[in-house]
Amino acid sequence: MVSPRAVGPLRLPIDRAVDSALDRVAQSELPSRGEFALIERHFKNLTDQNGVQLGIGDDAALLSATGGSDNQLVVATDSLLQDVHFPAAATAYDIGRRALCVNLSDLAAMGATPRWFTLALSVPAELATDEWLEQLSAGLGGVADRAGCALVGGDTTRGPLALTLTLIGEVPAGQALRRDGAQSGDRIYVTGTLGDGAAALEMLSSEALASPDARLFEHFYAPKLRLEEGIRLRNIASACIDVSDGLLADLAHICRASGVGAQIRLSELPIDQRVRRDFALQCTDWALSGGDDYQLCFTVPESRIADFHRLAATGAIDATEIGTITHSDRMSLVAECGRVESIDQLSGGYNHFAG
Amino acid sequence: MVSPRAVGPLRLPIDRAVDSALDRVAQSELPSRGEFALIERHFKNLTDQNGVQLGIGDDAALLSATGGSDNQLVVATDSLLQDVHFPAAATAYDIGRRALCVNLSDLAAMGATPRWFTLALSVPAELATDEWLEQLSAGLGGVADRAGCALVGGDTTRGPLALTLTLIGEVPAGQALRRDGAQSGDRIYVTGTLGDGAAALEMLSSEALASPDARLFEHFYAPKLRLEEGIRLRNIASACIDVSDGLLADLAHICRASGVGAQIRLSELPIDQRVRRDFALQCTDWALSGGDDYQLCFTVPESRIADFHRLAATGAIDATEIGTITHSDRMSLVAECGRVESIDQLSGGYNHFAG
Repeated sequence: MVSPRAVGPLRLPIDRAVDSALDRVAQSELPSRGEFALIERHFKNLTDQNGVQLGIGDDAALLSATGGSDNQLVVATDSLLQDVHFPAAATAYDIGRRALCVNLSDLAAMGATPRWFTLALSVPAELATDEWLEQLSAGLGGVADRAGCALVGGDTTRGPLALTLTLIGEVPAGQALRRDGAQSGDRIYVTGTLGDGAAALEMLSSEALASPDARLFEHFYAPKLRLEEGIRLRNIASACIDVSDGLLADLAHICRASGVGAQIRLSELPIDQRVRRDFALQCTDWALSGGDDYQLCFTVPESRIADFHRLAATGAIDATEIGTITHSDRMSLVAECGRVESIDQLSGGYNHFAG
Repeated sequence: MVSPRAVGPLRLPIDRAVDSALDRVAQSELPSRGEFALIERHFKNLTDQNGVQLGIGDDAALLSATGGSDNQLVVATDSLLQDVHFPAAATAYDIGRRALCVNLSDLAAMGATPRWFTLALSVPAELATDEWLEQLSAGLGGVADRAGCALVGGDTTRGPLALTLTLIGEVPAGQALRRDGAQSGDRIYVTGTLGDGAAALEMLSSEALASPDARLFEHFYAPKLRLEEGIRLRNIASACIDVSDGLLADLAHICRASGVGAQIRLSELPIDQRVRRDFALQCTDWALSGGDDYQLCFTVPESRIADFHRLAATGAIDATEIGTITHSDRMSLVAECGRVESIDQLSGGYNHFAG
């Protein structure tokens, strides 16, 4: 015979050590592993649609892809850690928005239509209040709603604050925007403006700035989704990437994958007027290497330029031509005076000559 | 004109603070975000097969599902944190094996065929040596090979040691093993033996044990995959779950989802001989509530019992009948003497009466 106490939840040695450490800081209860009841509740209307046969609450989600073999799946995963990818002062709402936007940026760069995502959340016991989790859900939910994707799985663990999202989308077979299709002579474009990510980080990290810039704040926590642009570029761009590490670093991925070089015209870099004014000394460097811009950088072959111009004329895509793909094995920058700066970004180092 | 220094990688304020903290402990270099070159190299032969049109190295993976709309996708995600899900003393090889096995267990419980997985790795700078990452890759790779699934995406971040895996599998439409199909009168089965997970944890946490048990060590770091069993149960089981939190907790998920109760016969619980001998006092509690067993717990309706017996007779599934699904809204335990212990597990608490 087993006593009621004996059949209660056993505390395993490792869990026990962790629990007692956590108990010293807070008493908050987390949803048990795999249940994720609170977030499921908040997302109920989202998990019931979009080809979701069975959402959160079983061992795994059960999903119906559309279009059969005419479509391919597109899968990307990204983690956000406190103090690395967002400041400790960020609200749960803003953390949720940023986590999903940043992950959706990868799907946009593939020309994919987002369908579903999973969330693995590690959170310290003292943070995991109902209110905090509701805020996180609200942040994720607003973006998920705009992007048309459903939360289909989750895992919650007590630990340092971190979110890992895995996004699943679809793209018509053969139409994904890859990194390896750029050819010499293709024109290079970026959507929106560059340097906003670095400017936003500077602003968020600085006490000095007189008037916080609401646009930069929004850019940091909810960068404009470029999903529509990615889909429209499917039959136009020869290569595409999202600018998350900085224009040079990300364009270098296209160059390496495609076996080409690139020449960027510094005077063409699209930089927001206010960023140019407030950060005159840094803004060009930020546009080149700042990161966190979440714009699309893509290449268009001459054969598609007319199509692209027709698309741009409708206002369906807001992009600036910033340079040209070259035969070279290097990337180079052209200053307004015509001076050329060669960057050995493709092999990881830096090399400099005057042209 | 831009100086070579100016176009070098900019250190953003937040990253800088993190970096300087890390620099105090170690100088190790991590693969840059999204590249994951080391693991990509190790898995090259795996990422080239299995419907992977484009694996690691672009913004997202590009995958071809099979069977079109005849198949459904099955998606599960799980995180493993140091000191919570594995001891700090665990090797990278063992961490890799355990991470993938534990995640595959969820797919097994759905009757799914694994196809692909992504890995988000957070690792402290001092751990992230080539050797450590190679070992982790080897641990993941061996299991991935046996399970027939390909690594298709990854993200690496400096931070506390944690792995989040997202698994994607397929199942013929309508044939997934869900939690909500159990009906009164169905027989309850579990594969293999129960209590091994708790016994293994006790062994790993204890200095006292004279002879470490190699079987328990293997069970903890590479629990036997039940994928074949899950697939064979597709047209036989009415409900299925993997035993990760403990038999009672997991069977309670089936009961709640199906709106039924359950009666377990204590004398039928399958417990390994050596566990029964070495942990005589704890083994029954561990079999009920220990967790980390990664067996399948499933229910079979009377109409399918003949099919199930035929399957079991071939040795294709190793399972023990442990009880019966009931009309009740409770779970109960029947001791050998016939005494009945009712457990209010379904509403989260514990209730005790003598029967």
